[in-house]
Amino acid sequence: MKALVLHEPGRAAWESVPDPDIHDPQDVVVRVETTSICGTDLNILSGEVPRVMPGTVLGHEAVGEVVEAGRDVRTVRPGDRVLVSCITACGRCRFCREGSYGQCRGGGGWILGHRIDGTQAEYVRVPFADHSVHLLPGAIDSQDAVLFADIYPTGYEVGVLNGQVSPGDTVVVVGAGPVGLAAIATTRLYSPDRVVAVDLTPGRLEAAGRFGADARVLASDRPEQFVYDLTDGLGADVTIEAVGVPETFEMCTRMVRPGGHVANIGVHGKPAALHLEDLWIKDLTIRMGLVDTSSTPMLLSMLAAGRLPVSSLVTHVFELGAMEEAYEVFAGAAETGALKIALKGEQVYRADSSSLVTTAGSGARFG
Amino acid sequence: MKALVLHEPGRAAWESVPDPDIHDPQDVVVRVETTSICGTDLNILSGEVPRVMPGTVLGHEAVGEVVEAGRDVRTVRPGDRVLVSCITACGRCRFCREGSYGQCRGGGGWILGHRIDGTQAEYVRVPFADHSVHLLPGAIDSQDAVLFADIYPTGYEVGVLNGQVSPGDTVVVVGAGPVGLAAIATTRLYSPDRVVAVDLTPGRLEAAGRFGADARVLASDRPEQFVYDLTDGLGADVTIEAVGVPETFEMCTRMVRPGGHVANIGVHGKPAALHLEDLWIKDLTIRMGLVDTSSTPMLLSMLAAGRLPVSSLVTHVFELGAMEEAYEVFAGAAETGALKIALKGEQVYRADSSSLVTTAGSGARFG
Amino acid sequence: MKALVLHEPGRAAWESVPDPDIHDPQDVVVRVETTSICGTDLNILSGEVPRVMPGTVLGHEAVGEVVEAGRDVRTVRPGDRVLVSCITACGRCRFCREGSYGQCRGGGGWILGHRIDGTQAEYVRVPFADHSVHLLPGAIDSQDAVLFADIYPTGYEVGVLNGQVSPGDTVVVVGAGPVGLAAIATTRLYSPDRVVAVDLTPGRLEAAGRFGADARVLASDRPEQFVYDLTDGLGADVTIEAVGVPETFEMCTRMVRPGGHVANIGVHGKPAALHLEDLWIKDLTIRMGLVDTSSTPMLLSMLAAGRLPVSSLVTHVFELGAMEEAYEVFAGAAETGALKIALKGEQVYRADSSSLVTTAGSGARFG
Amino acid sequence: MKALVLHEPGRAAWESVPDPDIHDPQDVVVRVETTSICGTDLNILSGEVPRVMPGTVLGHEAVGEVVEAGRDVRTVRPGDRVLVSCITACGRCRFCREGSYGQCRGGGGWILGHRIDGTQAEYVRVPFADHSVHLLPGAIDSQDAVLFADIYPTGYEVGVLNGQVSPGDTVVVVGAGPVGLAAIATTRLYSPDRVVAVDLTPGRLEAAGRFGADARVLASDRPEQFVYDLTDGLGADVTIEAVGVPETFEMCTRMVRPGGHVANIGVHGKPAALHLEDLWIKDLTIRMGLVDTSSTPMLLSMLAAGRLPVSSLVTHVFELGAMEEAYEVFAGAAETGALKIALKGEQVYRADSSSLVTTAGSGARFG
Repeated sequence: MKALVLHEPGRAAWESVPDPDIHDPQDVVVRVETTSICGTDLNILSGEVPRVMPGTVLGHEAVGEVVEAGRDVRTVRPGDRVLVSCITACGRCRFCREGSYGQCRGGGGWILGHRIDGTQAEYVRVPFADHSVHLLPGAIDSQDAVLFADIYPTGYEVGVLNGQVSPGDTVVVVGAGPVGLAAIATTRLYSPDRVVAVDLTPGRLEAAGRFGADARVLASDRPEQFVYDLTDGLGADVTIEAVGVPETFEMCTRMVRPGGHVANIGVHGKPAALHLEDLWIKDLTIRMGLVDTSSTPMLLSMLAAGRLPVSSLVTHVFELGAMEEAYEVFAGAAETGALKIALKGEQVYRADSSSLVTTAGSGARFG
Repeated sequence: MKALVLHEPGRAAWESVPDPDIHDPQDVVVRVETTSICGTDLNILSGEVPRVMPGTVLGHEAVGEVVEAGRDVRTVRPGDRVLVSCITACGRCRFCREGSYGQCRGGGGWILGHRIDGTQAEYVRVPFADHSVHLLPGAIDSQDAVLFADIYPTGYEVGVLNGQVSPGDTVVVVGAGPVGLAAIATTRLYSPDRVVAVDLTPGRLEAAGRFGADARVLASDRPEQFVYDLTDGLGADVTIEAVGVPETFEMCTRMVRPGGHVANIGVHGKPAALHLEDLWIKDLTIRMGLVDTSSTPMLLSMLAAGRLPVSSLVTHVFELGAMEEAYEVFAGAAETGALKIALKGEQVYRADSSSLVTTAGSGARFG
Repeated sequence: MKALVLHEPGRAAWESVPDPDIHDPQDVVVRVETTSICGTDLNILSGEVPRVMPGTVLGHEAVGEVVEAGRDVRTVRPGDRVLVSCITACGRCRFCREGSYGQCRGGGGWILGHRIDGTQAEYVRVPFADHSVHLLPGAIDSQDAVLFADIYPTGYEVGVLNGQVSPGDTVVVVGAGPVGLAAIATTRLYSPDRVVAVDLTPGRLEAAGRFGADARVLASDRPEQFVYDLTDGLGADVTIEAVGVPETFEMCTRMVRPGGHVANIGVHGKPAALHLEDLWIKDLTIRMGLVDTSSTPMLLSMLAAGRLPVSSLVTHVFELGAMEEAYEVFAGAAETGALKIALKGEQVYRADSSSLVTTAGSGARFG
Repeated sequence: MKALVLHEPGRAAWESVPDPDIHDPQDVVVRVETTSICGTDLNILSGEVPRVMPGTVLGHEAVGEVVEAGRDVRTVRPGDRVLVSCITACGRCRFCREGSYGQCRGGGGWILGHRIDGTQAEYVRVPFADHSVHLLPGAIDSQDAVLFADIYPTGYEVGVLNGQVSPGDTVVVVGAGPVGLAAIATTRLYSPDRVVAVDLTPGRLEAAGRFGADARVLASDRPEQFVYDLTDGLGADVTIEAVGVPETFEMCTRMVRPGGHVANIGVHGKPAALHLEDLWIKDLTIRMGLVDTSSTPMLLSMLAAGRLPVSSLVTHVFELGAMEEAYEVFAGAAETGALKIALKGEQVYRADSSSLVTTAGSGARFG
């Protein structure tokens, strides 16, 4: 098969590799219908995640069809259309028993495209299939569904739930990239009074508005003052960091009210300063962590019911074989305006027969 | 009356000041039976809390007798013996309505010995008395009760409750000063499996053992390794910071397990590094804040029932008039071994008629 | 002034009584701009609540203007426009400190129109004003605001919060009278997947649709089967009883899934059978209780932001002087289609100058 | 092998049956070291649980050694000493994923000695072994450990956790049989201020004292008045029903304070009256359900650490072959004073070499 293989920092290639097969009776092999590229993939490619060994196939998001299932797999079988979750879970360790699948100690967690071969390929082996893939109703478009492999559960669990968004709240989401937008969209499930989006670029703020932000502030427009003015000087009930740099994290700890919640979604590469000399007295709760994807079934059901905005998040669609070009478009988001990119293999199920898949090289922009 | 008045950084004096009286119909005036000195008082004295104006009477802990009550006070009256809480609460603002008295926006919060005259005096005016003093049964010794003005509720609410200590947990308390010891004592209310105390000095670790620590580790003895060994490399369920310096806070974030809780009790003077490059993935909850004293009635009832260890926390007892000497003993805790110091005025109620009050200058050491 | 005075079971009259005045320094007197009639008032009138003494002025819902305030009242003053909550709270007792105002042991709780004179009058005295009235922005129509004196907080707190409605849930609300409709409307704050309304009459089910019910089932159309079919035989996540008779309560315990929640809003006059022989194994949580109105500030803010459907709940509007006729219309809801009735005194603030107040006797139906 | 086989209502016999073997790759077969008899077994024997088919081997509690493991079992292997939990869990269904193993929809739940052959036998097959048996350290005595197959997790989860016992609470446990005693013992993990035991017999109340009850009241001695007197007329914070008849359940709903919790542990055979005419206003939470045994690992660790009182709960010890006699002793508890009975097969591990196993027929009473 063909797959995107990491060779060394800065270099990965779409090339032929052996087809995956069943290693363990709990594995499935999935033919990839649609995959995507995550910001973390760019970090891996640039060498910032040294744990990823050369030779690894990248990617941790996919929708596809089960083509082979190990003898102990009980919940799916060949022919089933599934979402491959970014989190794999052994289902037996103490963390899995508590639903903390992201912290699995039994060989799961975030392993796809990280410790084992991932989803940016024509086929992918998924271990512990009973806890790691989700059956999809045929009617869900794979371009929408693939957003639920990582970014929607991440925005919801790590942002909205960790932030304890509640009816009537003022919520600030700093960073309106794909995960920030997913956080904005899913805050709506708890009926905040106001959602404020903060970003560097007008284009992403415009997208934030489409996903449910009531107010949008450029990072250069004194967002902290904006939030204080909005809240009579008190600060926001919840601030959600969705960038991954110290400045935005620290901003989140300043913009939150006493008694409020800071939820960190960002993947950070260096420490932030925690200004305990100001914050020790402020009754803050700061949460951070990897997604568990325990909310995925509920979110998929909300998606199927049309209760979540998703349609404009995928800005570019490519064929799988245009993987390298897709990475360039995604890496150059500042110029290309890319939010999320869908890469499509052979489509078996189509919700909407009029949807078109662009051929390699044409990279049509949607929305 | 006599009171300890702050004059300038580094200088306070026990001197004559006007008697306090009722300013507002919700005030009471309390004759101080017993007061104490808190580490925060040392910070104020040294000038680290510039908000405290020269001329302020220090202190925020007391047991005493109500001698005058404003016309709107409904829950206590002259003659009642009360605990004066370190937190004063208006009872009407949004924070008070949620029980977040420490964050009171209606003129309360931590004001005694901070924004208004405090308890290191023969008499103290307490605003918003219905929400700021607690009736004491006569049988509770004032030397025990005064520990519930601040340190027991702080250890319990900011340490144990914020840390979500649960049955079976491994808990690490870093810092075995008075508040750390109160945290150790009150972790027991939730039946942790193991409580590990970490401190710089063997004397404080010995005290930690008396208050319920199962294991005691000197800061110089690689406490992180100790905790990892104890937990199969996983880390503690809960870590509680009770020192107030960056190093111990950062240690707490390293010693906690994925999915665990860090509770900060320490009063900090400078920022700590939050190593998000390691922690973003670790499912941590970090909480910090001022005590609300909402647990005070329950804790007093546990004290009255003999369910909390308290007796060896007061190491020195002085007469009120020996206030300046008491500060010296408390400031020199490394040499004097002082944990908590009780300063006693005229005693009306005595639980135990054999208890002795030392005269100024003799500073007998207990326990 | 004029007021509706209870004389004996079955008889109350709109008649002259002395004007209320300040009894206690925490009282306010409010001129009633708008009041309403609650199902409980009908129970009192019929003699089912013997604790209500003859001579009592009925009613526990109002919007009006503060005309006099006791000397200890701090949060409102004469001229302020306020919502008079059905729950009065001393603010000092242990229940009030926990936000359980409905259970106040300090002289509050549900007292208006019950233990003391109520709101169906030109003026009403409200004790403990700082905790019992809520400032209203002028822009909220009194006809909308009066719904927040009782039915919206009741539907939300006793139905939605007690039932722990969560995103993605299937919720069944049995009874689509005013409180059931308020519950349906406020379930939406937690984004359930499906809300099923059950009632005896098509007219009320039609209203349920306007307030957010996705599915509507007549009580005669086998609602239990409907719910089982909808949930693959499992039952609903949450069932909310909003009628007050044994049959509907028992239906709620049958229609809920294992692990689900039953929230009782209904005011009951006799026992229900709790079929523990079936239910002991079913992991049910059943909650019941009086509203606390702790959510009122949040709900008013959601109302002001246009986030809650309210407009069609008031079906009839009368002048205050038409109180007796209004009772007849409300008691004959089966024929008149009455949901909620607004009775209007002199209007000072008008959100919408085109709104009309009908004169006594004309009882125009809105709709 | 030999096993206790149900033949018809009222008749079961210890007789030869085929040895169990592996049916499914997730099964294990366990050689029974110790089993016990539960009150539910008596109900099954008397025909009150018609779902149990003639020919079924009874029993759902055991400690033993794995002698055979299916090929998909990953967490235990032959030779391991394990606790066989009363709850079997598929680990894959939506209920298992939420930790609600008792409600398993994938073929587990309470099945041993109910839907499939149980533990009152020399060998037992346990399905879904990875989620249904717990590794035991060798040092735990099997006579203590067998109490954690059902009654300790039941008392803790269904009584203490469902009742939300909190520090400082007044808790009433009605019924001091084995499960009631386990509830009393485990309330201590949350440091209630007072635990009141209510029972019909002085002997059981005496046992309640040994397990941690502060006060003991005979059912004939007006327990409700006792509780009201103890709580200034308010009622208990938590009441726990551990009998299973309507009278005691109804007593629990009367003895609880407004805002309190009623936890039902009892297995009921008929409905109770829920006096909603009194209770609708009282802010009650009533919970009921089957144990999940999700707390078993924590409880076993507390047992191993010596933090739970267990030793006097087993009053009689028999050899497995004396099963029929043991049933008689257990059924005649009113005369024999039996609390819990241990039945011992061949012992491999012995924590204490001095412990004796009585031979069939001698039934020595301990404690």
